[in-house]
Amino acid sequence: MTAQTARIVRFHETGDASVLKLEELEVQAPVDDEIRIKVEAIGLNRAEVMFREGHYLESPSFPSRLGYEAAGIVDAVGPNVVDLKVGDRVSTIPAFSMGQYGVYGESAIVPARVAAKYPEHLSAAQGASLWMQYLTAFGGLIELGKLAPGATVVITAASSSVGLAAIQIAKNVGAIAIATTRGKDKQQFLRDAGADHVIVSDEEDLAGRVMEITAGQGANVIFDPVGGPLLEVLAAAAAPRGMIIEYGALSSAPTPYPLFSALAKGLTIRGYTLFEITRDDELLARAKKFVYAGLESGDLKPIVDRAFPLNDIADAHRYMESSQQKGKIVVTVP
Amino acid sequence: MTAQTARIVRFHETGDASVLKLEELEVQAPVDDEIRIKVEAIGLNRAEVMFREGHYLESPSFPSRLGYEAAGIVDAVGPNVVDLKVGDRVSTIPAFSMGQYGVYGESAIVPARVAAKYPEHLSAAQGASLWMQYLTAFGGLIELGKLAPGATVVITAASSSVGLAAIQIAKNVGAIAIATTRGKDKQQFLRDAGADHVIVSDEEDLAGRVMEITAGQGANVIFDPVGGPLLEVLAAAAAPRGMIIEYGALSSAPTPYPLFSALAKGLTIRGYTLFEITRDDELLARAKKFVYAGLESGDLKPIVDRAFPLNDIADAHRYMESSQQKGKIVVTVP
Repeated sequence: MTAQTARIVRFHETGDASVLKLEELEVQAPVDDEIRIKVEAIGLNRAEVMFREGHYLESPSFPSRLGYEAAGIVDAVGPNVVDLKVGDRVSTIPAFSMGQYGVYGESAIVPARVAAKYPEHLSAAQGASLWMQYLTAFGGLIELGKLAPGATVVITAASSSVGLAAIQIAKNVGAIAIATTRGKDKQQFLRDAGADHVIVSDEEDLAGRVMEITAGQGANVIFDPVGGPLLEVLAAAAAPRGMIIEYGALSSAPTPYPLFSALAKGLTIRGYTLFEITRDDELLARAKKFVYAGLESGDLKPIVDRAFPLNDIADAHRYMESSQQKGKIVVTVP
Repeated sequence: MTAQTARIVRFHETGDASVLKLEELEVQAPVDDEIRIKVEAIGLNRAEVMFREGHYLESPSFPSRLGYEAAGIVDAVGPNVVDLKVGDRVSTIPAFSMGQYGVYGESAIVPARVAAKYPEHLSAAQGASLWMQYLTAFGGLIELGKLAPGATVVITAASSSVGLAAIQIAKNVGAIAIATTRGKDKQQFLRDAGADHVIVSDEEDLAGRVMEITAGQGANVIFDPVGGPLLEVLAAAAAPRGMIIEYGALSSAPTPYPLFSALAKGLTIRGYTLFEITRDDELLARAKKFVYAGLESGDLKPIVDRAFPLNDIADAHRYMESSQQKGKIVVTVP
């Protein structure tokens, strides 16, 4: 019997997108509570770009796999797996070490706990565009921000997959979604995506516009993956007792803490990653229930921007780094 | 009938302590829901130094009174006052505009809502040393920090009146109090004041010591009036999901936001002033109940550092600015 092989993306050093290599590797059998997925689509995330660069919360040890989100068909299960079987259609929840279980490739092994079935009406590309974005936005807006009907939320970098998920979740709970985007080119897209208001931050005074929209009250919740000098602007846009949720570090500039706004308004600034949700069984179950209900009702609908073939994984990363995307970037397999 | 006069502290320009002037002014009658207090003692606060300098949340309009805390005897009541009468022994809760109602002087008028009786066993100097410190620490540690038995709290600038109040409140609820102080000279004093651990930050690695004390867990709550570069150190000392409560801006240096610690640990950084407590009737009632119970049991015991005569109000401010004090600085009247 000859060993089966699959093409897997790995990198042997940190660096730009060109470090990503497509390698023919022997397919392993899942052990213990692991499952193996024949991958049909991969969802790309900023986290993977940062991991590739060596700037992520987790550091790679080489050669390293990468990737959090894949959708496909279970084609083998470990001896301790009870809830999943060969043939199930699943996608992966980012609740594992990328270095250990990275899913970029034709075949991926992950712990069964992180594989979730997804609705029949979604394509594999959409299935690979669910968990990072909706769990991240759910945890920030609902669990931490306690976003309520009529409350106002400012969503920065709103054209990202998480930003769009946040708009959908905000509308789903009856909140007012103010999306921000740097340039005018994404303004109409964000309106079409459900934002009640769009602020073009390169051209408009962000805090001033939020105050105008909220009749001087400010935003109750602000959901921001950027940081840097923007944080002071967001603090100016916040309502008294408002909460700013920082869930990323896209800005490479230092981030001053807005001490005086924080004191005067009693602001909460909360650092957050979705691992808070995915590491906690109870929270994760609540989050999944929310997402399934939203997918069912149609309030949540993953927006796929563009699909690349697996051969072009480096180009897919470059495209993500160009920040042109409007929604999720996916890679289809084969 | 000749008008009665009283010596009142006012200032006619922002500046150093020398701008404080003791002026003979006509005593007014309280109107509406106001009461008048014959002042016996005044408690000094950093807020008044900042207000005098023009660096406070509220700005003075000249000539301006100042002062949040006085203890004395009610000697007149406005027509709408129902709960207080002439002869009552009260002290003031900082829940008013200093510019409008400043209590530095022999006589003070305040809204009846902010006057509270205090236990017989306390001196007037102690009575003037209650509300700012205990309400501030209660709001931060109990209402926001949800400080629980066995939890660890780091209290910076611990020799201040609020710092000492925080130590007492932490011990009162069964938490572990780690006090920090810059120099060695206050180390023993803080131990005597109830701190379980004292970190001398000029000589010791603050975050390292907190990790050592907490067996690598970090502090659950951090209560800090300093800000500046210290915030990054405090973020390093915080436990996962820890809360840092910033309640002042003693540092004149910029305050970087510790974005990476915040993301990795899910930290909450909360700006806070006691006005959150004092503006809310329900919260204020809960806070007063907590303070009265603590004063009754002896767990809360205001520590008066030094008393100045009213004539020396400028020196009293200078002493506060020198940061030598261990506890409350008061002014006794006459």
